[in-house]
Amino acid sequence: MKLKYGVVGTGALGGFYGGKLAKAGHDVHFLLRSDFEHVKEQGLKVDSVDGDFLLQPVACYSSAQDMPVCDVVLVCMKTTGNHLLPELLKPIIHEQSLVILVQNGLGIEERLAQEVPHASVAGGIAFICAHKVGPGHVNHLDLGRLILGLHTSTGNKLLQQCQQDFEQAGVPAQLAENLGYIRWQKLVWNVPFNGLAVVLNTTTDQLMKQKETRELAHEMMHEVIFGAKNCGYDLDPDFADKMIRTTEKMTPYAPSMKLDFDNRRAMEIESIYTSPVQAARQAGFEMKKVAMLESQLRFIASQIEN
Amino acid sequence: MKLKYGVVGTGALGGFYGGKLAKAGHDVHFLLRSDFEHVKEQGLKVDSVDGDFLLQPVACYSSAQDMPVCDVVLVCMKTTGNHLLPELLKPIIHEQSLVILVQNGLGIEERLAQEVPHASVAGGIAFICAHKVGPGHVNHLDLGRLILGLHTSTGNKLLQQCQQDFEQAGVPAQLAENLGYIRWQKLVWNVPFNGLAVVLNTTTDQLMKQKETRELAHEMMHEVIFGAKNCGYDLDPDFADKMIRTTEKMTPYAPSMKLDFDNRRAMEIESIYTSPVQAARQAGFEMKKVAMLESQLRFIASQIEN
Repeated sequence: MKLKYGVVGTGALGGFYGGKLAKAGHDVHFLLRSDFEHVKEQGLKVDSVDGDFLLQPVACYSSAQDMPVCDVVLVCMKTTGNHLLPELLKPIIHEQSLVILVQNGLGIEERLAQEVPHASVAGGIAFICAHKVGPGHVNHLDLGRLILGLHTSTGNKLLQQCQQDFEQAGVPAQLAENLGYIRWQKLVWNVPFNGLAVVLNTTTDQLMKQKETRELAHEMMHEVIFGAKNCGYDLDPDFADKMIRTTEKMTPYAPSMKLDFDNRRAMEIESIYTSPVQAARQAGFEMKKVAMLESQLRFIASQIEN
Repeated sequence: MKLKYGVVGTGALGGFYGGKLAKAGHDVHFLLRSDFEHVKEQGLKVDSVDGDFLLQPVACYSSAQDMPVCDVVLVCMKTTGNHLLPELLKPIIHEQSLVILVQNGLGIEERLAQEVPHASVAGGIAFICAHKVGPGHVNHLDLGRLILGLHTSTGNKLLQQCQQDFEQAGVPAQLAENLGYIRWQKLVWNVPFNGLAVVLNTTTDQLMKQKETRELAHEMMHEVIFGAKNCGYDLDPDFADKMIRTTEKMTPYAPSMKLDFDNRRAMEIESIYTSPVQAARQAGFEMKKVAMLESQLRFIASQIEN
């Protein structure tokens, strides 16, 4: 069975992962907003450490209404637009479609499964350094691994085939038994470094250089790990130490939320902070420092909006 | 007995409180740094809601070495300079002198009592809106009450006379039974609003306007109250609600630490954050949000220094 793929949100992630599938011969349909005209005329360009390529022509669309019904939809936009998903997905999914949220944060599959109850829902976590450098132009600098996990009870076969398709297209892809576990695991790094980089208007290397913020990040990682534990995901506390060591070796880096902040785009506060804080709270654990960072980010967001 | 007063740090507080005593006929000796020449020539000017006045001539000095030995020394500089106190006080105190720290924060009397063991030490908490508007020129806008509390077992008589002298000079002054209690009480407001105004680069009204930061400030107040409780000072939890209501009615206001930050002066992180966090920790209570704010402020201070 050959799957028909849809990509909603053709930025760095959508362009890279969708592009890799299309280049390998899969049937991929891209939804674009601002870059539509450019990609329609000049194609989708991916500069990658694994080899550059240009897709042309691209099956691209400026409206979901124009797209075919797809078996698998990769949602690669920011979670700040997820309230639009029910409307966007309506024309492009059938009763057995699988929607994979390749996004950051927590609680996003739960919400979509409620809003679009007839679809199967999965999550994808991307370990990749890639960014958009121009219209329809992605620069892939490092890594690329994708971890996929099913949220609903249906969709398993589609997800398995999807994983194989990615592997065949040259994207290392794994199936995770437990989506919640890997979502929390990703939060261990995302929670301290995204928010602190925004609130303190800085980059990871500066946060690591200063003893107080390095320790604060470490403590917040432990809070996230305890939050996960209370929610039933038994992360290893040593994972925090490992993440700190990894960050020590990283080149100076502005996390995605910092880039959103600098470009005055909406920040993913809801999925990276609010949902985890609420999940842990409902499980009886108050992530005090994470909640404080959430409040500070909400304040900053309100100042930008005004 | 007529007391000889010394004022160390003749800014807004030193100029106002020392000025009021001198104007009422007390023998007051002022130590000045940058404003010395100006005050020597043109006097000390206090514009006050209670009536403007000009002191001239002023018994002023550019070095503590030149000053007479004083019975009571009012220390009115920022706590960030307190490491200089042993050296500054040496020429101006005798075996029975009383040093009153009219400053913010916690742990400052403890430190001075260790460093200058032969002096009596007290603390003063000023409820006043006043700022320096030019060399030797203080503007007093509102309030003015002074609460005095003894730290050492000696010095009680001097402190009592000092309180009477203030009252006689038109400054409402009270003696507090328990200095620690009032120091912690003052922290309830200072801790959330000073630090958050710096980290979020804003003013009290904005922090109050946004639901998340208003609640965060309220929670931090409760942390301070529980910190105090663990240290043996039984503040009323309702005091937090009262402070929130007071702040709601305040005109937009940049707390002193925000002014220090804006003017790239050293911030009183040690006395307002580090000492209280450590005191509560030693008593078995971790003020998590206060500690997080301390770390963030340390980071910001390090960025300014670089």
